[in-house]
Amino acid sequence: VAILPQPILEVIESLSSLPGIGPKSASRLAFHLLRLDDNTLKRFGTQIQDLKNNLVTCQRCQNIASNDPCDICRDSSRNQSILCIIEDALDVVALEKAGHFKGHYHVLHGLLSPIDGIGPAQLKIAELEKRLQTEKIQEVILALNPTVEGEATVLYLTKRIGALISVKITRLAHGLPVGADLEYADEITLARALEGRRIVKSSE
Amino acid sequence: VAILPQPILEVIESLSSLPGIGPKSASRLAFHLLRLDDNTLKRFGTQIQDLKNNLVTCQRCQNIASNDPCDICRDSSRNQSILCIIEDALDVVALEKAGHFKGHYHVLHGLLSPIDGIGPAQLKIAELEKRLQTEKIQEVILALNPTVEGEATVLYLTKRIGALISVKITRLAHGLPVGADLEYADEITLARALEGRRIVKSSE
Repeated sequence: VAILPQPILEVIESLSSLPGIGPKSASRLAFHLLRLDDNTLKRFGTQIQDLKNNLVTCQRCQNIASNDPCDICRDSSRNQSILCIIEDALDVVALEKAGHFKGHYHVLHGLLSPIDGIGPAQLKIAELEKRLQTEKIQEVILALNPTVEGEATVLYLTKRIGALISVKITRLAHGLPVGADLEYADEITLARALEGRRIVKSSE
Repeated sequence: VAILPQPILEVIESLSSLPGIGPKSASRLAFHLLRLDDNTLKRFGTQIQDLKNNLVTCQRCQNIASNDPCDICRDSSRNQSILCIIEDALDVVALEKAGHFKGHYHVLHGLLSPIDGIGPAQLKIAELEKRLQTEKIQEVILALNPTVEGEATVLYLTKRIGALISVKITRLAHGLPVGADLEYADEITLARALEGRRIVKSSE
C-alpha cells in the first residue's frame, strides 16, 4: 500500500501491531483518526504519550496505580487478613466490579510460563513473600485463570507459601469455564467462583 | 471502572470511541500499550499527534496525499481521459491494489446522504465539474459502493454530469455483492467489476 502517504502508513503499522487489529481494521481506524478534529487527535496522541507518566506501582500490592500505596491498599475498611492473588490489573477491575471481595490484592504481573521464559523471578513473588511474613494474613486466595499457566502457578505458589508460613490457601471455584479468561467472566460467575472457593491447604 | 488510574481510563475512553472497539477491547488494548517500552509508546503517540501535519489535499483529485499534485495525478503514464470517481482514499488503495485501472481518480469524500445532512455541497462535486470542463475526459467511471447512498450518488452525478458535458459515464459491474463495502472486495472481484462496467449514458 505504497499508495498512501507515509504518516498514514506509520499509524496503520502501529495500529496493526496491537492485539486483535488486522491490517484492514488498522486502515479503517487510521482513516477514522484522519476525520477527527485536530484537538481530539492531538489529545488522543498526548494521552498515549503520557500514559505511563503519572502511573506508579503500588509497593504493597504491585498494582498499577496513581499513588503509592494505592487506593485499595489505603482503604482501612477492607479486610486486611484476606489476600487475593491475581495475574494482572484487569483482574482487579473484574473482581471489584463483581463487588463480592472486600480483602486485599497482590498482582503477580503474569503467570509461570517456562516456554516464554517466565519463571518465579519474573513475577512479584518475592514481594508476596515479604507481605506474607509481615502482614497478618489468614487466607490467601489464588484467583488465577484456569489455564495451564494458571494451574502451574497455583501448584507452585501453594508449595512455596506452604513452606514459608502456615496459612489457609484457597482457589476460585470452577464456576469459570476451563480455558477461558478471568477478566471476561460476568459478575455473577465471578461472585459464585469466590463463594465456592476450595481449600488447597489448610492452615494446620 | 473507577478502580483504574485516570490516564488509563482516558486512553480506554478514547480507544472505545473508535469504530469496532468496545469497552473490553479498549481495556485490553490500553493494557497492551502499558506493556510497550517507553520509546515505542512515545513514537505511537507522536505518530497520532502528527498524523495530519504533513498531509495535504491534492487540488486535482482531492485525495489525501503527501504532496500537491499527488503522485497519481503527476504520473504522466496514466490515461488522462478516464476519470474514476470514488468515495474515499481507501477506495483508491483498493483499486490500485487490484492493478487493473490506469486512469485518474476523483475523491468525493463521502456519498449523498440527506439523513446525515450530506448534500452535493458537502462532496467534492464542484471540483469535479471544474475538472470535467478543463480536462479532456472521455469516460467517467462511477466506482461507488453498491449501497443506497452509492446508488443515489450515481443517479445524481449521472444527471448532473450529463447536463454539463457530453461524456461516456459508466459504473462498476455488479460483481460486488450488494450492500457490501468496496474496500473489502478482493482484487479479482474488483478487476472483474472494472472490466464489466456498464454504460449509464453514452456520450452521444
